[in-house]
Amino acid sequence: MITGGTIDKEYDPFRGELTFSKSHLSNMLNQVRCKVRFILEEIMLKDSLEMRGEDREEILKKCMNCSENNVIVTHGTDTMVETAGFLGKNVKGKTVVLVGAMIPYAFGASDALFNLGCAFSAVQTLPPGVYITMNGNILLWDNVRKNKESGEFEEIV
Amino acid sequence: MITGGTIDKEYDPFRGELTFSKSHLSNMLNQVRCKVRFILEEIMLKDSLEMRGEDREEILKKCMNCSENNVIVTHGTDTMVETAGFLGKNVKGKTVVLVGAMIPYAFGASDALFNLGCAFSAVQTLPPGVYITMNGNILLWDNVRKNKESGEFEEIV
Amino acid sequence: MITGGTIDKEYDPFRGELTFSKSHLSNMLNQVRCKVRFILEEIMLKDSLEMRGEDREEILKKCMNCSENNVIVTHGTDTMVETAGFLGKNVKGKTVVLVGAMIPYAFGASDALFNLGCAFSAVQTLPPGVYITMNGNILLWDNVRKNKESGEFEEIV
Amino acid sequence: MITGGTIDKEYDPFRGELTFSKSHLSNMLNQVRCKVRFILEEIMLKDSLEMRGEDREEILKKCMNCSENNVIVTHGTDTMVETAGFLGKNVKGKTVVLVGAMIPYAFGASDALFNLGCAFSAVQTLPPGVYITMNGNILLWDNVRKNKESGEFEEIV
Repeated sequence: MITGGTIDKEYDPFRGELTFSKSHLSNMLNQVRCKVRFILEEIMLKDSLEMRGEDREEILKKCMNCSENNVIVTHGTDTMVETAGFLGKNVKGKTVVLVGAMIPYAFGASDALFNLGCAFSAVQTLPPGVYITMNGNILLWDNVRKNKESGEFEEIV
Repeated sequence: MITGGTIDKEYDPFRGELTFSKSHLSNMLNQVRCKVRFILEEIMLKDSLEMRGEDREEILKKCMNCSENNVIVTHGTDTMVETAGFLGKNVKGKTVVLVGAMIPYAFGASDALFNLGCAFSAVQTLPPGVYITMNGNILLWDNVRKNKESGEFEEIV
Repeated sequence: MITGGTIDKEYDPFRGELTFSKSHLSNMLNQVRCKVRFILEEIMLKDSLEMRGEDREEILKKCMNCSENNVIVTHGTDTMVETAGFLGKNVKGKTVVLVGAMIPYAFGASDALFNLGCAFSAVQTLPPGVYITMNGNILLWDNVRKNKESGEFEEIV
Repeated sequence: MITGGTIDKEYDPFRGELTFSKSHLSNMLNQVRCKVRFILEEIMLKDSLEMRGEDREEILKKCMNCSENNVIVTHGTDTMVETAGFLGKNVKGKTVVLVGAMIPYAFGASDALFNLGCAFSAVQTLPPGVYITMNGNILLWDNVRKNKESGEFEEIV
């Protein structure tokens, strides 16, 4: 499920800013010749700083109401931990993996494809629960924080 | 462990051919801000069509003699299944994941980073055994083949 | 001479904004195997919206005081026409070409290298005067405007 | 006019070789927002080592028979000097610029866009004659060679 975040941002040459136009997930999975069956669903395209309670409710509802048991949620990194926490307390019986990027897929030297690969394996191998896959790590929703200085996701303890 | 393959090939502008100069794995893991602890070891830089029995013996020895229990082996795709088979029969008590790319990391639109991400999660989550992570799939060494027409890795059955 | 502009901007993953850290001109000319003799001089690294009269005075001084007769000035596109106008009225006996980019060199699908190539040929072939090379065009300082809607540089008439 | 060469080559992941599928010139000029009026004509897609006398005859004919006076010819670097020599002796009254790349446009770190930019300015500013624009240089057909060791184009004297 696609919710936006840096992974899907683009550079707008007219305003000199980062912006959303459309999701790149379909292109990404095409580029890497992904042959695992998946369904792409775009719920929203938001900077995660602008996500509100109702957005997280909607993500939760989509996770619970879909027929799949393995769900990847692309998400901005700024509030990924918060959304993971909300899903972690409410998702039952499904494996949900949140993933994003520090640098947009559309730019040079992005971490997007690596992170997405981490999410694809994680969602296929992990038991039900809510996880974040960033920086090569697989982190449980109730034991993860974003280090403000390094920008990296790490265990709390 | 690095053995070469397309993932590490470069374009040689003087001869107009693909060639090896050095491994890109260090750059790749740097680019994606990987924070999982790892040790890079370059065993060889070979096109997998040129791999012989002694090369596979060496890969096996390195896998068994290192102190880590989780090992990723980068490898050319042409004989990846063969090496996985040899390791699968001989590796005991370790999780070994073979991974490579259809398009070199150094070129545009490569599958290298995604595949590497798949390998990183898989090696951390799977029980001891020998696996291939390509095309988003996680495949056991004794149930995998490379489809000659599509170039994709798939289950035998 | 390097003054900044989009061509040299980078993405700052911590703040999610575009920023300057160092000029990429040296890398760019290395990448393209440029063998024309040149001297790189970084005067400033500014968004051209923040350029003031004293900045343009400094660019003019550097152009007139250097020993070369052929000068390329990298510059942001927002006020490139204004700087070209100021230089056009004051530069004597030298060929000065202003150039920039709509999309940073460091991002995917940038126009930076093409524009720089246009500037390199133009500065070697044109008679003394002040020019802008953008969008494949070569435009004289007193007959150029940036089209606000398309973002493209064009003749006034 | 498009004749092939490294600039238009792609990587074929199935055979692990470089190959032609279609020209990238249209994409390139789109990417850089080129606004100079041009007509793209694909004459052939050949490695320049495979060019024969009849190919050069055809390029000459196309150059002379088209209604434009400014012609860019994309060409492989291996025999670019030879084709430039043939055109130089036979083209009358037109400005023809040959250009190519050491690294394909489709790969990372290519010189293609820079070289193409050099050609665009050169063809607009130079008097009738036949030229090569490579490595930032503008070289006359009768005073150019490809340095076998460096791969760079340079004046004979």
